[in-house]
Amino acid sequence: MSDESINKNFHLKKREEISLEKYVTGILSGDVSLLSAAITLIESANPKHRKLAEQIIEECLPHSGKSIRVGITGVPGVGKSTFIESFGTFLTTQKRKVAVLAIDPSSQKSGGSILGDKTRMEDLSTNKNAYVRPSPAKGSLGGVARKTRETIILCEAAGYDTVLIETVGVGQSEITVKGMVDFFLLLMLAGAGDELQGIKRGIMEMADAVVITKADGENINNSKRAKTEYKNALHLFPASESNWIPSVSTCSAYDNVGINDVWNTIQSYKNQTTINGYFEHKRKSQSKYWMYETINEELKKTFFNHPEISREIKIIEQKVTEGSLSPFKAAHLLLEKSLKHEFN
Amino acid sequence: MSDESINKNFHLKKREEISLEKYVTGILSGDVSLLSAAITLIESANPKHRKLAEQIIEECLPHSGKSIRVGITGVPGVGKSTFIESFGTFLTTQKRKVAVLAIDPSSQKSGGSILGDKTRMEDLSTNKNAYVRPSPAKGSLGGVARKTRETIILCEAAGYDTVLIETVGVGQSEITVKGMVDFFLLLMLAGAGDELQGIKRGIMEMADAVVITKADGENINNSKRAKTEYKNALHLFPASESNWIPSVSTCSAYDNVGINDVWNTIQSYKNQTTINGYFEHKRKSQSKYWMYETINEELKKTFFNHPEISREIKIIEQKVTEGSLSPFKAAHLLLEKSLKHEFN
Repeated sequence: MSDESINKNFHLKKREEISLEKYVTGILSGDVSLLSAAITLIESANPKHRKLAEQIIEECLPHSGKSIRVGITGVPGVGKSTFIESFGTFLTTQKRKVAVLAIDPSSQKSGGSILGDKTRMEDLSTNKNAYVRPSPAKGSLGGVARKTRETIILCEAAGYDTVLIETVGVGQSEITVKGMVDFFLLLMLAGAGDELQGIKRGIMEMADAVVITKADGENINNSKRAKTEYKNALHLFPASESNWIPSVSTCSAYDNVGINDVWNTIQSYKNQTTINGYFEHKRKSQSKYWMYETINEELKKTFFNHPEISREIKIIEQKVTEGSLSPFKAAHLLLEKSLKHEFN
Repeated sequence: MSDESINKNFHLKKREEISLEKYVTGILSGDVSLLSAAITLIESANPKHRKLAEQIIEECLPHSGKSIRVGITGVPGVGKSTFIESFGTFLTTQKRKVAVLAIDPSSQKSGGSILGDKTRMEDLSTNKNAYVRPSPAKGSLGGVARKTRETIILCEAAGYDTVLIETVGVGQSEITVKGMVDFFLLLMLAGAGDELQGIKRGIMEMADAVVITKADGENINNSKRAKTEYKNALHLFPASESNWIPSVSTCSAYDNVGINDVWNTIQSYKNQTTINGYFEHKRKSQSKYWMYETINEELKKTFFNHPEISREIKIIEQKVTEGSLSPFKAAHLLLEKSLKHEFN
């Protein structure tokens, strides 16, 4: 056992010894160490920690929900950290308390790329009105999603009124984040072409706002042109259920220009959707969605971890892709194996 | 019992008496009555019919897969039937054998709106190289999807080399159809605005081709302008996995203009994706997808039909949307109730 892991175990042991009450009153009073300790319990694989975490969450739940939750995505290189650093710092000057979380399923392999290194956001990390928490590095996307969603609850209970959730613009994690935020922000680079290829189809239509970053120096005209193009393009697309028309703007974290516009846009969105009832409606749908999603995930896990299924599934899948067995017949063969009692 | 249902029962009884062998040789020789009878077995809720249907499908499976499968969607009013009538008739002049199927979950309520009335496609319905089959009117979207997918197998085994699957451009059914076709065609009207609102966000980015319909008379210039706009817009979006760049064209079923262009586009797509391997890759992924999808659907059905769950779920869901219970805690409460054995 390495020094580091001995050290970590020691800390986790200590965390268990703190009482539920101490955690909850600590979090509600905005104590950052207790908040961090509780999030570590959420992320722990130890069932005792999970149980304590669950109790903390249920106690904090009535005190949560009062923040605006903003998802931020964009391909690597778009300048997400720099944007969040500027945007978050700006928000603290507006008397907001900002929590920055991340969802990065790729960190399962790399050991945490997004926010893995807090030094990427030096100012925010040391700002007393901001709380920066790296992505939980382990587990499936579903697991990471649950942990992040539970972390939002604790951050809100601790008084953070703006929660920024960072993710990478390359796939399924966007849809996951979209399902837990009020507002979804897509960062893009002017000049399109190759940079664009990294963003998965469908992500663009999920955005409540597109912000073209690095609109400074020689890039200003390019960025303005890109803004017009995206504005025209987005106008062709159908309105979202919220009746909100996605905005397109440019910004430069370097020149500190356009950052406040993003915040104005988010506030307009919040006002408009609060008045038309969509804000509350979406929050409720999201909660329901996560309940059903968790059930579905657990059902699948139980089924596919069944010894007979995990033994046979690859052979049957092979027959299906070869075309020698129909997908439906294959499904029923597998279901019959594991669920005889329920299906007869 | 009405005369009609007595009559229907009588027909179904007769269908059962036909042997498996007779069905299969009949379908393989292109016998339309036996094909129709077999599809009725697929759609039947009677377990005996389902079992026979399953055997027919497994026998036909090795003879299937040789068609090009095209999904066609667009909001009501875009002129889908008229387009399919022209397009299908054109295809038969190109020595193609055309099967037209439909997926319409709304028909669960209305009793079948899409293709419910074959007279909407008078020419095709009576064309000996075309087979028009209305949407199965009953069942969940998952159930309708399974039936349609199995029907594709039988149509292909019966020698239809072009399968058109119609759906309405308003939601989940698009994603379902996209998951069972090689090429996905979106019909749109020029003039955007209100008509567009009916199409759900995300559908546009799924399209392999956008065809602007009713490009005739006073609408020609509008349509050309719309074509340019969509072309520019689609260029901004990321390339799909197939490396295919979605095409945009105009057509008039009335003037019979642009219909052949659509077919040329589909053939280019087929050539390009056959060469780069995507065509085969997509077919295999779709088969795998349907196997897993069927398993997931059945697992959910079993769980949510569990008496204790269906009794309690609304109460628990209510607590979740009110915010007095976290979605994850709620999910675990429900899972513990039904799956005690698996989870302890």
